[in-house]
Amino acid sequence: MSKIYVVGLGPGNIECMTQEAISAIADSDTIVGYKTYVDLVQSLIEDKEVISSGMRKEIDRCTIAVTCALQGKTVALISSGDSGVYGMAGAVLEVVEKSGEDIEVEVIPGVTAANAAAACLGAPLMHDFVVISLSDLLTDWGLIKKRLHCAGEGDFVVCLYNPKSKGRPKHIEEARRILLQYKEGTTPVGIVRNAKRDGQQVDITTLDEMLNKEINMFTMVIIGNKSSYIKNNKIITPRGYKV
Amino acid sequence: MSKIYVVGLGPGNIECMTQEAISAIADSDTIVGYKTYVDLVQSLIEDKEVISSGMRKEIDRCTIAVTCALQGKTVALISSGDSGVYGMAGAVLEVVEKSGEDIEVEVIPGVTAANAAAACLGAPLMHDFVVISLSDLLTDWGLIKKRLHCAGEGDFVVCLYNPKSKGRPKHIEEARRILLQYKEGTTPVGIVRNAKRDGQQVDITTLDEMLNKEINMFTMVIIGNKSSYIKNNKIITPRGYKV
Repeated sequence: MSKIYVVGLGPGNIECMTQEAISAIADSDTIVGYKTYVDLVQSLIEDKEVISSGMRKEIDRCTIAVTCALQGKTVALISSGDSGVYGMAGAVLEVVEKSGEDIEVEVIPGVTAANAAAACLGAPLMHDFVVISLSDLLTDWGLIKKRLHCAGEGDFVVCLYNPKSKGRPKHIEEARRILLQYKEGTTPVGIVRNAKRDGQQVDITTLDEMLNKEINMFTMVIIGNKSSYIKNNKIITPRGYKV
Repeated sequence: MSKIYVVGLGPGNIECMTQEAISAIADSDTIVGYKTYVDLVQSLIEDKEVISSGMRKEIDRCTIAVTCALQGKTVALISSGDSGVYGMAGAVLEVVEKSGEDIEVEVIPGVTAANAAAACLGAPLMHDFVVISLSDLLTDWGLIKKRLHCAGEGDFVVCLYNPKSKGRPKHIEEARRILLQYKEGTTPVGIVRNAKRDGQQVDITTLDEMLNKEINMFTMVIIGNKSSYIKNNKIITPRGYKV
């Protein structure tokens, strides 16, 4: 049967990939991916057919993967972080289903950006948390705002994917304003650019001060809950143990 | 300087560990962990000092790690999944801080249980989600219920850690009742026992039917949002692409 692996690369250096992801790439004839991610694994794919394309071409890449699979090739469709978190796993399953073809899809999980960033910050995710993308390219901004309110109301730790881009510079400001309705201004905030890959930069700050730090497309923002605190430049959200 | 790695093993087979986690263990003199997790990495630690203990001894293990580090040993404190998600990262940072000693703690992230289970189910986490533990050992059950309400209100995909144990057989039933106030009974539910390790079992079901499936301590429960659907025995939460 034709086969497509949907491979989560993790944060973007080969050390943070799983053995399983490396094996799936080794087992594949053809690698399909966003150019930036293909470049990250260049050393693993030198003997492979590589088909890369630019941003926002997600469905095109899925269609290419299906076409290659139907030619009898084993395909690795690569995705940064975890392919199952805002990644390519859903899109390729939808495209395969629509094609009506008999193609096996195996999702290979990886370390997602929230977990990679959390590791750089200390231990902010020791308690219940939400993961919200601030990109409204595919989601109604009203729904995103509602979810921010729910996250605040429930005193969740909050991980913000896609916090800012040129097209939506103000979403992070509005997200902060909403969370300030529920969380103190002194709540710890971790801002990690390029978590666990070249160019990593970490800022430990607060809800009050966070907009003074650089936030861009390669940034994960993690905002603590009521118990989170900063100590020795780490954010810790206590699990509740008596220490 | 003394050093403790807090190592996320991923779901529990060596294939799903990162290179970085394997290297951290190789670099360590002493491995400290819950016995079950130590057994999972037996092949990597044959030449190491190993100190294992039973359930609910988290703080004891952190204290042992600190003691060993102060003896000049490099220590790997191991944790299943991601050490930063309900794992040992927070506890060890708290114990080190309380000790006042100068010990470097490096958190090595791994594939967390929600991501491992999602990969077994298809693509349920393609959109905003919450992660909630149903264990009230360290958290007030009232707060957990409130968070379930917030998760329902925001139409989040919901990942339930620790859904059931002998001490709290009914929490999952109450969680389901709360979510049914916001989600349709036909909402897809994925139940994964022993995700990505020996003994893996997957059930794809619905909120209406989920209590007919086995749910135990080794189970992750993932409940879809309004758009999630089941097709070819996979759960897909659409990201919103036009396919």
